[in-house]
Amino acid sequence: MNFYAVIMAGGSGTRFWPASRQKRPKQLLCLTGRRSLLQQTVDRLSPLVEPRRILVVTGRAHAEQVGDQLPELPPENILAEPQGRNTAAACGLAAAWVARRDPQAVCLVLPADHLITDETLFVDTLRRAAELAAGQEVLVTLGLTPHYPATGFGYIETGPTLDPEPPSISEVAAFHEKPGLATAREYLAGGRHLWNSGMFAWRAGTLLDELEAHQPLLAQGLKELAPALCGPDQDAALERIYPDLPSISVDHGVLEKSSRLRVVKADFGWSDVGSWEAMAELWSLDQQGNACQDGPLVALESQGNLVSAGGRLTALLGVEGLVAVVTDDVLLIAPRSRCQEVGRLLEELKQRDQEEYL
Amino acid sequence: MNFYAVIMAGGSGTRFWPASRQKRPKQLLCLTGRRSLLQQTVDRLSPLVEPRRILVVTGRAHAEQVGDQLPELPPENILAEPQGRNTAAACGLAAAWVARRDPQAVCLVLPADHLITDETLFVDTLRRAAELAAGQEVLVTLGLTPHYPATGFGYIETGPTLDPEPPSISEVAAFHEKPGLATAREYLAGGRHLWNSGMFAWRAGTLLDELEAHQPLLAQGLKELAPALCGPDQDAALERIYPDLPSISVDHGVLEKSSRLRVVKADFGWSDVGSWEAMAELWSLDQQGNACQDGPLVALESQGNLVSAGGRLTALLGVEGLVAVVTDDVLLIAPRSRCQEVGRLLEELKQRDQEEYL
Repeated sequence: MNFYAVIMAGGSGTRFWPASRQKRPKQLLCLTGRRSLLQQTVDRLSPLVEPRRILVVTGRAHAEQVGDQLPELPPENILAEPQGRNTAAACGLAAAWVARRDPQAVCLVLPADHLITDETLFVDTLRRAAELAAGQEVLVTLGLTPHYPATGFGYIETGPTLDPEPPSISEVAAFHEKPGLATAREYLAGGRHLWNSGMFAWRAGTLLDELEAHQPLLAQGLKELAPALCGPDQDAALERIYPDLPSISVDHGVLEKSSRLRVVKADFGWSDVGSWEAMAELWSLDQQGNACQDGPLVALESQGNLVSAGGRLTALLGVEGLVAVVTDDVLLIAPRSRCQEVGRLLEELKQRDQEEYL
Repeated sequence: MNFYAVIMAGGSGTRFWPASRQKRPKQLLCLTGRRSLLQQTVDRLSPLVEPRRILVVTGRAHAEQVGDQLPELPPENILAEPQGRNTAAACGLAAAWVARRDPQAVCLVLPADHLITDETLFVDTLRRAAELAAGQEVLVTLGLTPHYPATGFGYIETGPTLDPEPPSISEVAAFHEKPGLATAREYLAGGRHLWNSGMFAWRAGTLLDELEAHQPLLAQGLKELAPALCGPDQDAALERIYPDLPSISVDHGVLEKSSRLRVVKADFGWSDVGSWEAMAELWSLDQQGNACQDGPLVALESQGNLVSAGGRLTALLGVEGLVAVVTDDVLLIAPRSRCQEVGRLLEELKQRDQEEYL
């Protein structure tokens, strides 16, 4: 069985502004240590997949930086979307690319901007999912054991357990959208719901079959693309065909409609690194709960602040619960509790035509 | 009558840390606009004194930067103290230097780190003080009209008015140390007390006579120094003699003992720029009372913050009354109300042997 890894690096979120920018989205940032989230994603696949079998699907604006960060990948393995068309198209494109080489090969689909703490368990879980996808020709999702009643993720409701040996395999009873807090608490208490991680395993051919069944227009477009993939005309064909593909998520467009589904329960430490606030769990804290990513800290009567000061000394006196970020051209200060609102600052900058800061 | 200006640039305060540093004290900083406080001090003297008649007394560690900032001054006009010996020695040194050229010349003594808003009135007031010093051979102090009951300055109690024509001339009844708030309020209400500005005018010979009378040891040291001043041995002589001069302020050591005193009432807009907090009055404010020195500002639900972000965009969301300063190697955040306490951070850094940040 051949494995391919498909890294989904199309994000252009604003929640790590001003560190993340339109031209340098979160997955390209070094938020923990010296390797970017994208590079860490590739690094942790090394026991499982060799570089020539790793694909990255990314936006055209970021393809060059992706290539610079991953010099070990052949250039044709970086698939540059001329325009974002959501995850069904991105997964389909990657499956079509892999199928040109080996339709039986398994694609492991992984977001580029997550953090994993137990990498050994991560690799074991992926291997389990890949074997399942290969053996039974099913679409496999990884479902994360919830640790708190999160309202920011979709949930997978598990059906009957098919193999209790961890990482356990179950049928999928249903997908649920992001719940309210009360529902999230019920999910957590019930023990049958898992976070929808955005990590998948399937044979290239299986996904293409399911697209054919449930997204025929998309499947048609991919067939037109296929002959150019892995070759010198790849970019030109993408340019011509990709922007017209239907835009729908792989969850809505395929998984929720498919009857060939399995979920593997994933229990490796995981974070989607959703905002500066999430960094409090990932960076080391001083005795007052201040976290300072990349430089020394001197803090007096200051608690629970999160600072990324670009290697500078951070000096705090009498401040509490702030996020502060210094980049080459921006200083951001906000309460941690409001760091999800930085998008409002970006709106304001847009209105003022100060696009250079976006 | 020849005027000389003597700029006292010996300060090494910490209140503008991290912008001010041991190696780059406040007077060398550009806190408002593109010229440092020292450069602005020289600039505003241009209607009155030509560069070859401007002296700067500064610490040896800063002499080179002073020379770089003031290329129009002849090198021998920068008097580098091998060690700070307080203002009586600094004023005496400058008077001895001027007396080598012209004992009758008037020295205008001015701190290097103050801001003046009405420069025309400033020049007129200095001219008045200089003429008085020249004509009556007195020590003239400039007393600033108080605008609030300041507890951070010493006060000059005026005696009988000698010339009511503004800027008015009075006798000096007494000097008073920094008062408590109740006393400061009485001073303000009474109308007879002025802030002691640290600005003086006297003939070089008059000051040397008064030093002879009240600080004979200091006068003796200056006599030993005198032959080397303005010549190639100036630095070597300073090195040998200056560190042993008595250390006393010109106020305590001379003015408070002298009977040849006058005060000229000064009413030009003035600030001693005592801390980041003082910048709120000098920088332009947005509608929410945020002041951002040197770069664009985007602020949502944020009031009364003071930011110096080194030309960066400052983005504030939901924060109030903070001081934030970004330099090449430090980020400082504190409430405005506590920015006088930054010295405590420096103590902490000293204890940790992180002297590079002082």
